[in-house]
Amino acid sequence: MGNKNISMAVIRRLPKYHRYLGDLLDKDIQRISSKELSDIIGFTASQIRQDLNNFGGFGQQGYGYNVEALHSEIGKILGLDRTYKAILVGAGNLGQAIANYSGFRKAGFEIKALFDANPRMIGLKIREFEVLDSENIEEFIQKNDIDIAILCIPKNGAQELMNRIVKVGIKGVWNFAPIDLEVPKDVIVENVNLTESLFTLSYLMKESE
Amino acid sequence: MGNKNISMAVIRRLPKYHRYLGDLLDKDIQRISSKELSDIIGFTASQIRQDLNNFGGFGQQGYGYNVEALHSEIGKILGLDRTYKAILVGAGNLGQAIANYSGFRKAGFEIKALFDANPRMIGLKIREFEVLDSENIEEFIQKNDIDIAILCIPKNGAQELMNRIVKVGIKGVWNFAPIDLEVPKDVIVENVNLTESLFTLSYLMKESE
Repeated sequence: MGNKNISMAVIRRLPKYHRYLGDLLDKDIQRISSKELSDIIGFTASQIRQDLNNFGGFGQQGYGYNVEALHSEIGKILGLDRTYKAILVGAGNLGQAIANYSGFRKAGFEIKALFDANPRMIGLKIREFEVLDSENIEEFIQKNDIDIAILCIPKNGAQELMNRIVKVGIKGVWNFAPIDLEVPKDVIVENVNLTESLFTLSYLMKESE
Repeated sequence: MGNKNISMAVIRRLPKYHRYLGDLLDKDIQRISSKELSDIIGFTASQIRQDLNNFGGFGQQGYGYNVEALHSEIGKILGLDRTYKAILVGAGNLGQAIANYSGFRKAGFEIKALFDANPRMIGLKIREFEVLDSENIEEFIQKNDIDIAILCIPKNGAQELMNRIVKVGIKGVWNFAPIDLEVPKDVIVENVNLTESLFTLSYLMKESE
């Protein structure tokens, strides 16, 4: 269902629209033209109109956009009004930082448990969670109808873990492991690859010298 | 200087080539055809040849690529053989996780200090670093010839801090703050926007239902 033909480039711009519109709401700005929006967001006004037309427009000639309505509509398009149950796997430094990440609430992601394979981590208390043994991850996913796994684990073993959790119903993964995971077609993987980002910075620094 | 006309799309694929070639080296594989590389990396063989031709090729007809030479050449293109001095600003959960990130060494980034504005953080010991007061950041940057700042701070105040550190010579920023920073043209900003990534996952989950 939905907007199957929207390009990933447009989709990846939507969170940015959502963020800027949220900032406008915080400043009590209720109405904005595509020209004004263009000035603050840095896309051309024509790009903005084109992007938003993909989802049926929302703008009115001579009025511009209603900030609150547009913010809320984009939120719905992004699925922010849904709730997903998530587990986080890998309770090391990055995992702990991600467990504290405030963006989950906005995105409707509810973290239900942390898992780790390291005996020294299992049983530790991190925020409201006791770190559970990865051995028991399948059982937990099934009992608690978990939709999403957040992977903050090393590359080694990540594919094996992925295979295990996909078998018991995980439909989406936010993956911080530096590996391209192989998954069935109906499973979504969104990667955050810190090394690729850092190497890009390194390249651009070198080129700008 | 350098390869100014290379598109960002190609540049963003280079770290992936580097990673896969590193994996091959770990497995003692010395030679690979673009077809075999295509099978493991998931780009078409023609895409791979095109990408690498941007930098002068490296392949030999009938032989394929020498894995070690190609890995090392891509490393040089990415500037991984250079050393940059970095500071990390914002010693909260994410900052601490990033300070522990092992990718810095590979990228030639040397973290010289952590800074925070929160009096409760200042003076704390994190890894080998005592957290320093952000008040004194300009002085530290100038005294220690710092090139790069890693920003793990909230959106509020990020632009003001950016203005201060750019004035004293920061040339690159790895930015985790959810804000599009305005910087002079010769300053590089590479953003890691966790919220945009999470919202994209949310969208794709919704669409796949």
